[in-house]
Amino acid sequence: MPRLILVRHGQSQWNLENRFTGWWDVDLTEKGVAEAQAAGELLRAKGILPTVAFTSFQTRAIKTLHYALEAAGRLWIPETKDWRLNERHYGGLTGLDKAETAARHGDDQVKIWRRSFDTPPPVLEDGSAFDLKQDQRYAGIPIPSTESLKDTIARVLPYYEAAIVPQLKAGETVLVAAHGNSLRALVKHLSGISDAEITGLEIPTGQPIIYELDDNLSALERYYLSER
Amino acid sequence: MPRLILVRHGQSQWNLENRFTGWWDVDLTEKGVAEAQAAGELLRAKGILPTVAFTSFQTRAIKTLHYALEAAGRLWIPETKDWRLNERHYGGLTGLDKAETAARHGDDQVKIWRRSFDTPPPVLEDGSAFDLKQDQRYAGIPIPSTESLKDTIARVLPYYEAAIVPQLKAGETVLVAAHGNSLRALVKHLSGISDAEITGLEIPTGQPIIYELDDNLSALERYYLSER
Repeated sequence: MPRLILVRHGQSQWNLENRFTGWWDVDLTEKGVAEAQAAGELLRAKGILPTVAFTSFQTRAIKTLHYALEAAGRLWIPETKDWRLNERHYGGLTGLDKAETAARHGDDQVKIWRRSFDTPPPVLEDGSAFDLKQDQRYAGIPIPSTESLKDTIARVLPYYEAAIVPQLKAGETVLVAAHGNSLRALVKHLSGISDAEITGLEIPTGQPIIYELDDNLSALERYYLSER
Repeated sequence: MPRLILVRHGQSQWNLENRFTGWWDVDLTEKGVAEAQAAGELLRAKGILPTVAFTSFQTRAIKTLHYALEAAGRLWIPETKDWRLNERHYGGLTGLDKAETAARHGDDQVKIWRRSFDTPPPVLEDGSAFDLKQDQRYAGIPIPSTESLKDTIARVLPYYEAAIVPQLKAGETVLVAAHGNSLRALVKHLSGISDAEITGLEIPTGQPIIYELDDNLSALERYYLSER
């Protein structure tokens, strides 16, 4: 039976500093590295061994994948990196910590951006220190200037259908190492979660979430591997 | 112009112990990690930035690739892993150190195996501790029981033609992180080195070798990046 393993990247430096990160390329902390390794050790201990892997264009997810695969004894499996698995782009909030954001925009507005399904934050201004136009990894890619969760889902799901579904249909055990919001897109789709509820669903870092799927890739079961 | 970057993996535990390794999956030492990082830092400093990467199925080469790409700021480029870039399979010599090998087989015989182009070592016996038949990474793959350098070249070059040449023809800067003998195969081909001479050509660990190629992928120049 096809099986999908979702792993949110381990703690990053800006998770630690409580700053909006989005597409900015922040590295893992030591704790984040340990979380990624623990995820791979758990996969190995439970015998849930990925045969194919996907990740984003972002260092924290790619390194989480590599540390987890190494700990699982699976560093040799094929891996594909794609920008469509990137984190939600936080626009003008990129780089701000929560206190700064509340001071600048007000508590109520921040709540809307964090809880709303389809309201994007303000766009990232031209000339921002967090502009990615000069980053060669995004050459030829339509870099968003901001995204709502809905926008993020609108790029993640077509990629899931085009690239990941064929692997699942071929019977592979697919590991996706990605981000809180790109993984929310997959959980919303597979578990049929409403627009209103998905924004409140927390995906913990470094905790493998397992989907057991039927031949039509409908979810038979979703569970945290640590709870089995 | 197309460009090919070859990097032999950094020091492994069995390089350090002077043991024949071949297809056995031995990890990098700390020195090996540092060599891989230094290779990536050199690529970054010289502005020779890979756009596509290839490596073997073996941990020491895969990790060399990852450390080098991270240091070069290129962890996000596509990477392909293939067993045909694996090290030469040393058959029954796998796991032996040079003193053991000389004691078991005689100095003259060891010299022949190390210097000969087409004489393979004895086969790896069934039931050897270094048998790979149970290793899932090689499921469905024709695992050799031993290889001469000629045998290694006979699997590396068709893979080069099929997978790497199209990337070079598309103008990519291709990084291959692999092993002493799989890289000898490429150097022999690109630099037109004779059967007799290639066995004596040493590929240093963690030293990027650059091939500048013309549109027909003939070598215009080969150099160690550290010497520019």
